[in-house]
Amino acid sequence: MTHRIRARYLIETADDPRRAIEVMAGEQSSGTFIALPGETPELKERYGARIEHLEVVEEVAEPSLPGAKPGPVYRRAAVELSWPLENLGPSLPNLVATVTGNLFELKQFSGLRILDIDLPEAFAEAYPGPAFGIAGTRRLTGVDKGPLIGTIIKPSVGLSPEATAEMVDALCAGGIDFIKDDELQADGPHCPFEDRARAVMAVVDRHADRLGRKVMVAFNLTGDLDEMRRRHDLVRDLGGTCIMASLNSVGLVGMIELRRHSELPIHAHRNGWGYLSRHPLLGWSYPAWSKLWRLAGADHMHVNGLRNKFCEPDASVIASAESLLEPMWADKPCIAMPVFSSGQSAAQAVDTFAAIGTTDLIFAAGGGIMGHPDGIAAGVASLRQAWEAAAAGATLEDFAARFAELRAALAVYGP
Amino acid sequence: MTHRIRARYLIETADDPRRAIEVMAGEQSSGTFIALPGETPELKERYGARIEHLEVVEEVAEPSLPGAKPGPVYRRAAVELSWPLENLGPSLPNLVATVTGNLFELKQFSGLRILDIDLPEAFAEAYPGPAFGIAGTRRLTGVDKGPLIGTIIKPSVGLSPEATAEMVDALCAGGIDFIKDDELQADGPHCPFEDRARAVMAVVDRHADRLGRKVMVAFNLTGDLDEMRRRHDLVRDLGGTCIMASLNSVGLVGMIELRRHSELPIHAHRNGWGYLSRHPLLGWSYPAWSKLWRLAGADHMHVNGLRNKFCEPDASVIASAESLLEPMWADKPCIAMPVFSSGQSAAQAVDTFAAIGTTDLIFAAGGGIMGHPDGIAAGVASLRQAWEAAAAGATLEDFAARFAELRAALAVYGP
Repeated sequence: MTHRIRARYLIETADDPRRAIEVMAGEQSSGTFIALPGETPELKERYGARIEHLEVVEEVAEPSLPGAKPGPVYRRAAVELSWPLENLGPSLPNLVATVTGNLFELKQFSGLRILDIDLPEAFAEAYPGPAFGIAGTRRLTGVDKGPLIGTIIKPSVGLSPEATAEMVDALCAGGIDFIKDDELQADGPHCPFEDRARAVMAVVDRHADRLGRKVMVAFNLTGDLDEMRRRHDLVRDLGGTCIMASLNSVGLVGMIELRRHSELPIHAHRNGWGYLSRHPLLGWSYPAWSKLWRLAGADHMHVNGLRNKFCEPDASVIASAESLLEPMWADKPCIAMPVFSSGQSAAQAVDTFAAIGTTDLIFAAGGGIMGHPDGIAAGVASLRQAWEAAAAGATLEDFAARFAELRAALAVYGP
Repeated sequence: MTHRIRARYLIETADDPRRAIEVMAGEQSSGTFIALPGETPELKERYGARIEHLEVVEEVAEPSLPGAKPGPVYRRAAVELSWPLENLGPSLPNLVATVTGNLFELKQFSGLRILDIDLPEAFAEAYPGPAFGIAGTRRLTGVDKGPLIGTIIKPSVGLSPEATAEMVDALCAGGIDFIKDDELQADGPHCPFEDRARAVMAVVDRHADRLGRKVMVAFNLTGDLDEMRRRHDLVRDLGGTCIMASLNSVGLVGMIELRRHSELPIHAHRNGWGYLSRHPLLGWSYPAWSKLWRLAGADHMHVNGLRNKFCEPDASVIASAESLLEPMWADKPCIAMPVFSSGQSAAQAVDTFAAIGTTDLIFAAGGGIMGHPDGIAAGVASLRQAWEAAAAGATLEDFAARFAELRAALAVYGP
C-alpha cells in the first residue's frame, strides 16, 4: 500500500530534462519561480513532488507546441512524479489541480501530456466507483453473453417525444439491447425530457412484456444538479434502467453528486474529448482521464470505435477500452463497461473482438443500424451475426455467405 | 433579441471548407455520417445548425494536428454556426455538449478552436452571473480605487495552519489588500481547511480592527459539493469575505451549485487552462470559455499576467482580461474582475495599465512580494508605487528614483 499519488507524463523540452521536471515538480508542490525563504529543505523533502522516473525516449528537431523556450533540439521523456497524500487528501477535485493544474503551459515544455495516474487506497475508500458495471448491466438487460447491441436515437435532435418513442418501438421490435439518447438531446423545449421518458418507457414496457427482458435506454439527463436528480427520479419511477450524462458538461462535482443520488447505471458520455486529447503532446490520455470518472462512479464509458468517423487511430481506441477493463485496485477494480461507437456497423465486429478479446462491451451503431438497406431489424441482426462470427472465430465473409442481413450490411458499410 | 445560440470557430481543413463545416453542423445537430430517413428537409431546416459565416483566412502547407484527412493544402477559416434555442433550452451543461461536443476530433479538421459564444437572453434569465463582481469586491475590501494588490500564500503547500496565519499576519502588516490560497492547498491532512480558516481569520480580524478594513482572503474550498458548502459556511461564519474554487476541478455543475449556495464572492481559478488552450488550433479561447463561468457566477477570474512564467503571449493575456470586462448582455453584463498573476511584480504594472486601461483588477504577486529583498512590506509598497506611476502616466524609472522599495524591486525583477 502506498501513500503517494503517482502520475506519469510524456514531456518535450529544449531545456535539460531533469531541470525542466524539477520546475514542474516545484510548481505543482512547494515551489514557485523564485526561491522563497519559507521553502526550507525539510518542507521540500516532506511535501515537495518527487521525481520517481525520468527517461529520455527521443529527440526531435521542431517543438510540438508553440511558446516554449527554444533550443537546438527538443527531447521527449517519460516522467513519473509522486506527491504525498497528505498534501491534498483523497479528493478527486483537488487531485485534478495537483496532477493536471498549472503545468501544461509552463515555458519549459513544448509538449506535456498526462499518461496515467496511480492513486493510494484512501481514494478507493473515499469514492464509490461504479454501482453496476458489467455484471449489473447484464443483469438489468438480461443479456448474459455477447456484446450489448446498442444504438443512438437519430436524428440526434429534432424528433418529438412521440417520434422518439416510435423510433424506440421500431428498435425494440428489431431486437436491440440498448438505446441511448444522442448527447445533443437532453431537455430542450422541442423534446422535453419528461414527455420523452414517459413515451419511451411505455414502449419499452410493452416490449418487455413480450420479450421477458427490458431494453435498456440511457436517458440523457445532463443538466443542473436539481434537474438531473429530478430526471433520474422520473426514470427510476417509470421503471427505466439507465441514465446518461455528458462528463465534460457536468464536471467532476456534478458526476460525484449524480452517483450519490443515482439508483441506476450511469452511462458516461465523453463528448468534447477531442479538445482534451487531440494533440498527442498535450492534454490527457484516456487511461488517466477515465480513472477519475470510474472512481466517481461511471458504469459505461465511451471509447470510440475502430475505423471511426473521427481521427483517433484504432490502437488508441483499443488501449482506451483495455484501460477501462484493468482494475484500479485489486479489491476495488472500478471496471467500467466500454462503449464502442462512432461510425460502427457489422463491418468492425470481428476486428474489434480480435483486438479486445472480450464481449463485455456495448457496441453502439446509429447509422450502422438505421442505415441498413433492409431496415432496423436487419441492421440489428447484421450486428449480432457479425459478433457471432467473431465469437466463433469465423470471418465476416463466412457468416455473410450464410446470413442475408450481414451480407447486405457489408455491401453498404464495407468489409 | 435572438433565439439562436451562436458560436465562432477557427477551423483548418484540407477538404472544401464549406463541405467540412456542413459535416460539423450536421454532427452537432440533426445529422450523422450517413443520410438517414428521419432527417427530413423540414426537420433539418428547423433544428439543424446553420452556417452563418464562413471566410477563408489563410492557407498553410502542413496540418496543425495529426489524424485529419490529408490534402495538398490546408485552409484556415473563420466560421460562425448557430443553433435554435429550442434544441437544448437555456442550459449551460447542454450548451457545452452542443458547441464543444464531438467536433474537435472530426476527420475533416486538422485544426478546430472555439473563439467565442453569443447566447440568447434566456440564458441570462436562467443563471445568476456574479453576485459581487468589481463593485462588491471593492466594497468588501474597502479599496475604492487602484488595483487590489494581492498575493498567494507561498510555499504553495507545506505550511501548517499556524504558519499560514503567520504569513497572513506579515502580509496584513505589510499592507496587502487580497490574499489567496494556492490552488494546491485545499483541505489536506497537513493543513486542514477549518484550522487554517480559523487561524487566518483571527489574524485578519485583528488587522481589521487596526485598519478599519478587512483584508480579503480567498480560501480554496475546492472539493466535493457537501465539503464546499460546509467550508463556505465556516468562512462566512468566521466573517471571511471570499472563497476560491478551481473551475476545472469542480466543473460546471459544481460551480452552479456553489454559486447558488454562496453568500461570498467566488474567486475562480483556471488551473489546467493549458490543456484546454495551449495549442492555437485546438480547444478553447478564453473569451468563449470564461463566459460559461461568468454566467455561472464567477466574481474573479484568472487571466495570467504580462511576461508571465508560462508560455502565453502578452496579447492573449490582455485579450482575456478585456473579454471579462465586456458585457455579455446590456442589462446583465456578468463582468468578472480580472486577476493578473504568474511571475508578476512591480515590473509589469505600468505595461499592464497601458494595455488594459483600467485598475479594476486584482494584481497578484507571490514571489514578486515575498521575494522582495527588503521583505513583504517593501514588496507590497513596490507594487503600489508601480501602479501609482502607471495611474500618473509616469514611467517606472521616474517613480523608482523617488521610492526605494520600487527601486529595489526593479533591481531584482527587472525593469
